[in-house]
Amino acid sequence: MKNTIFAFKDDSPKYKQIYEQFKLFIERGDIPANDPLPSIRQLADSLQVSRNTTLTAYEQLVAEGYIRGEGRKGFFVNELEPLLFQDAFVLPKKNQTKSVTPVLINFRAGAVDQTHFPLIIWRRIANQVLTLQESFGYGEPFGELCLREQIATYLLQSRGVKTDPNAIIIGSSTQQILIHLGQILKDDFPSIIVEDPGYDLAWEAFHFHRFMLETLPVYETGADFSCLEEMRSRLIYVTPSHQSPIGVSMSIGQRQMLIHWANKRHGYIIEDDHDSEFRYTQQPFPALASIDSTRVIYLGNFSKSFLPGIRLSYMVLPQLLLDRYKNQFLHFESTTSLLSQLTMAKFMEEGEWNRHIKRMRLVYKRKMHCIVSELKKQFSQDVSIIGEQSGLYLLVKVHLKRSEEWLIERASFYGVKVYPTSIYFIKNHSNEPIIKLGFSNLTCEEIKLGVQLLKKAWS
Amino acid sequence: MKNTIFAFKDDSPKYKQIYEQFKLFIERGDIPANDPLPSIRQLADSLQVSRNTTLTAYEQLVAEGYIRGEGRKGFFVNELEPLLFQDAFVLPKKNQTKSVTPVLINFRAGAVDQTHFPLIIWRRIANQVLTLQESFGYGEPFGELCLREQIATYLLQSRGVKTDPNAIIIGSSTQQILIHLGQILKDDFPSIIVEDPGYDLAWEAFHFHRFMLETLPVYETGADFSCLEEMRSRLIYVTPSHQSPIGVSMSIGQRQMLIHWANKRHGYIIEDDHDSEFRYTQQPFPALASIDSTRVIYLGNFSKSFLPGIRLSYMVLPQLLLDRYKNQFLHFESTTSLLSQLTMAKFMEEGEWNRHIKRMRLVYKRKMHCIVSELKKQFSQDVSIIGEQSGLYLLVKVHLKRSEEWLIERASFYGVKVYPTSIYFIKNHSNEPIIKLGFSNLTCEEIKLGVQLLKKAWS
Repeated sequence: MKNTIFAFKDDSPKYKQIYEQFKLFIERGDIPANDPLPSIRQLADSLQVSRNTTLTAYEQLVAEGYIRGEGRKGFFVNELEPLLFQDAFVLPKKNQTKSVTPVLINFRAGAVDQTHFPLIIWRRIANQVLTLQESFGYGEPFGELCLREQIATYLLQSRGVKTDPNAIIIGSSTQQILIHLGQILKDDFPSIIVEDPGYDLAWEAFHFHRFMLETLPVYETGADFSCLEEMRSRLIYVTPSHQSPIGVSMSIGQRQMLIHWANKRHGYIIEDDHDSEFRYTQQPFPALASIDSTRVIYLGNFSKSFLPGIRLSYMVLPQLLLDRYKNQFLHFESTTSLLSQLTMAKFMEEGEWNRHIKRMRLVYKRKMHCIVSELKKQFSQDVSIIGEQSGLYLLVKVHLKRSEEWLIERASFYGVKVYPTSIYFIKNHSNEPIIKLGFSNLTCEEIKLGVQLLKKAWS
Repeated sequence: MKNTIFAFKDDSPKYKQIYEQFKLFIERGDIPANDPLPSIRQLADSLQVSRNTTLTAYEQLVAEGYIRGEGRKGFFVNELEPLLFQDAFVLPKKNQTKSVTPVLINFRAGAVDQTHFPLIIWRRIANQVLTLQESFGYGEPFGELCLREQIATYLLQSRGVKTDPNAIIIGSSTQQILIHLGQILKDDFPSIIVEDPGYDLAWEAFHFHRFMLETLPVYETGADFSCLEEMRSRLIYVTPSHQSPIGVSMSIGQRQMLIHWANKRHGYIIEDDHDSEFRYTQQPFPALASIDSTRVIYLGNFSKSFLPGIRLSYMVLPQLLLDRYKNQFLHFESTTSLLSQLTMAKFMEEGEWNRHIKRMRLVYKRKMHCIVSELKKQFSQDVSIIGEQSGLYLLVKVHLKRSEEWLIERASFYGVKVYPTSIYFIKNHSNEPIIKLGFSNLTCEEIKLGVQLLKKAWS
């Protein structure tokens, strides 16, 4: 029986990949003699392999003399003759890089912390939902009322947004919601203003309907709203709580200015309030939709704050658009799992959602602190940190006169996966490369190890 | 704590609704004296209420003298003075109908059998999937490879369709898939041929992209393909295995003719193979996509055959369209729950999917037999049964010189919900009303009771 779910992408046995990676680290001197290796448990969890697999790899390294076991203290690197391995210092050829080096630390932004996931509670509710008769039918086209009621309560308490549950539309992703929304807007609004840099996946949804894009430049200090007056569009897509990707928050003055602009032009603001839950330094600012609900289309989702894989998003529509939307999509089935909706409704109803958010804010705050201090320690003035006040990732502007591509490739050679930001820029390009580091699903130890390896990679 | 998930839509207590419904039945003589009432368990399951609620309603009826309990034998109707209740025979006013009469038997087609759902196995796998690290990230844009591999194996074994897993795209519903598909077709294909009567929800997806619709008339004997030559479109959407809603299968000759047509016009056939799993009289015919994979876009889903609420569909694209599709949607996130995908993949891998289909084919075959024989028994020549050879519903053409609306409303007054088919017709209207009866989530006892009540309602 083929166990595809657990399979590595590479065809070689998993233990062999681990073995070869560590052999390379040791041969290159990346892990000095007498330094400890990650514990069996830590490595197995990090690479998503069994502990047996990890142990097999370590035992092979022991057998070949690279490392030694010291009982409960773990495994340590042996003293080796460096000259024997000098070839290993040469960077492998480009197409070899990807197949040879497995990812040890992955700074991707699209995953959530697994350790603190409320597994037992979620399972209990999900299992309970599976016994309900309504779970065996089709759901409501605009989402289950019980979930919309819970979201309405949450939005009022947490984001100051006062809404009728009937004005909430449940969807499966921000893009899917934007495709539906675009359908009712495209005839009246041929173009849309987007932030530059901004959220590229939203642009894809706008391209889907062939909206023309006008760009609003955003800097570390915020967006340059003085450009707005010259633009022709009456529709704008913004991320006010946590600008994607820069991380800056829109000030109250800017928020009011934007609402004034939309009213004057009889336009609409699409407010994507993604990951507004995770703000570490102050209370979150109120949502734009809490200031003026007639001109703001509010988007929220459960991807960052709960679990991206359940594919659960929503929007709140102003009355005028709501009628148009319901008329257009009355005969469309929901794209969102009914089971996930019912489970989430019950999870929120029981107060678990609020508890989860509070718990995760502390967890992610600690991780953010950890990555910031390790970056400062390792890189000092060589990098500038951007967007450390909120969210599940940060950006580093790297002052090393190297290209984005070089930084990513070198990191990859050291088993560290880091991400580009150039894809988020349209015209407003950065003069130095900016690298994105997501940390939500890494432990503090992994974050530190990752940054230390980056230091080696980029030196 | 408000328990929204379990709430009835009406505000009055649930037991009171049951009590009032049965009071009305007894007063009108619909349930004659000394006849048994449904058992507590049966009614509670059918109405999705607790047994206590049902018992409370029955106890109230006992207290008021309508019924009597006879210990383990159950509850029976008492002899009553009919004159006292003659007013009750008058049909209530239109807007009262819906609020007064709760639905006792719902012949809706959009639910699956709950009793035979493999709850324990599904839960076990779903719970296991929640512990995997990959469940905490975003999924692949075109669906998880492990699921696509399983679908490819299934399609080959069951539908004769030979496909590379990479040619399969996972989506959340047929409509969502058609919206994405329409995006890559609309520029080359301004119009599409659809069956009349046909699947109305697919038309909505075509309207989304403003395709012009041409209609191909379908009768109980099949589609009239002689019209095809006069049409301008090069694109057609069909349901060959089980025509939606008529239920007829396309013959091999017609299949070959259609493929020939598509090749000649350099067009495409969208083959929606929904509920092909449930054919009772012969082996299913091979899919169009098994005859010619270059001109056929194959659509399948897990709604009817497994669970509509997990929102899991897929399509198989010919190579030329596949490249265009992947190019267009590379930067779109999947709309389908990652957890459902991983769970379904494992479920299929363990052979549970095949077991489930075999089991359900027997279950639904029994139910189909049950509804057909009860309809014949009750209505004899007054109705014609259409589409009893496959699927989870059938149609009845009613020869009683009554309108569709009247038939539905009268049924509703007797606590039976039945469904119209006029919404599926564009031009090719039926001369007599056709009512749709879905039975997948009803027991044989409920089906019989429902048909018996229909007999009373329509007499």
